[in-house]
Amino acid sequence: MQLNPSTILAHATQILAEYGLADLTMRRLARSLDVAPGALYWHFPSKQELLGAIANQLLECVQPPQTTPGARLQSRDEWTRIVNYCVAIYSAMTSLRDGAEITLAALASGTTDRDLRADVRETAGSLGEIAFHYVLGAAMDVQAQQAVASALGDADAAQASADAHHVRRNVEVILAPLLPG
Amino acid sequence: MQLNPSTILAHATQILAEYGLADLTMRRLARSLDVAPGALYWHFPSKQELLGAIANQLLECVQPPQTTPGARLQSRDEWTRIVNYCVAIYSAMTSLRDGAEITLAALASGTTDRDLRADVRETAGSLGEIAFHYVLGAAMDVQAQQAVASALGDADAAQASADAHHVRRNVEVILAPLLPG
Repeated sequence: MQLNPSTILAHATQILAEYGLADLTMRRLARSLDVAPGALYWHFPSKQELLGAIANQLLECVQPPQTTPGARLQSRDEWTRIVNYCVAIYSAMTSLRDGAEITLAALASGTTDRDLRADVRETAGSLGEIAFHYVLGAAMDVQAQQAVASALGDADAAQASADAHHVRRNVEVILAPLLPG
Repeated sequence: MQLNPSTILAHATQILAEYGLADLTMRRLARSLDVAPGALYWHFPSKQELLGAIANQLLECVQPPQTTPGARLQSRDEWTRIVNYCVAIYSAMTSLRDGAEITLAALASGTTDRDLRADVRETAGSLGEIAFHYVLGAAMDVQAQQAVASALGDADAAQASADAHHVRRNVEVILAPLLPG
């Protein structure tokens, strides 16, 4: 098998989905790829870099809201784009087991392509920051419950999809003061 | 040394403060206490139980808001008690390295004495739930940054106290619609 970043990421995602972040070590990933750990480090010099690449993959489909930073929102449409952005962050983080923790670690170590926190703050100010921390907390909470369900062998509860509708409603509540008109 | 729950918790807290949650294993804790792992399991049958006890200790000083569940708030004073409760949860979680992750894991596995999530929802409804997830996200975020700073050997940044004033202002924004009068 050709060892390249996308093969490595596919195997890492597989380990995550099956066993969770605690079991994703460079050594184990190398074994799963049947290569020496050194070969892995050539592509990802550290676990931080690997988690950054996984987070980037998770966030690939999350489109920034395309509003004018700092400007007062002009339309309900602009406002909805910001709501959608926050919900998309939640959906991305909960699309992979322990995805919220991985995204957070990657943001903290600066290995993601984008700084979500800054994006949200720029477009929606301090309410954007509240919305970001809300979706982060909600995602961490649902994934902590999934981890417990998984440890107890309750596969259904572990797979239960996070309720994005509920999160959307709450993001709308948080950002309501920004709604123009 | 006498092995009792409080000695065990003191050593666990010490390991957490110095090395973080990833390095807190039952094996390492037993070594630090100079006892066989079996002696430890006699007091804490699992790591979940241990984390639950640590979370209970963190939350010891967090007083429930003493408002009538489900009732409309009658005074600014009652409202302030709910705000204080949310800020106290944040302060408790950030008072120990990785405290937010420990509290969350303990809540998810049901090993804490109280269910914070239910308490907040009962006293402040869906806004209370938003506030809880907000403080959880804010605490996880600041501790993820502290973990990176610590890994980089930046002791000052790793110790930097989380900004509870900022969090209080944001909780007040979230709960503003509940303010009576």
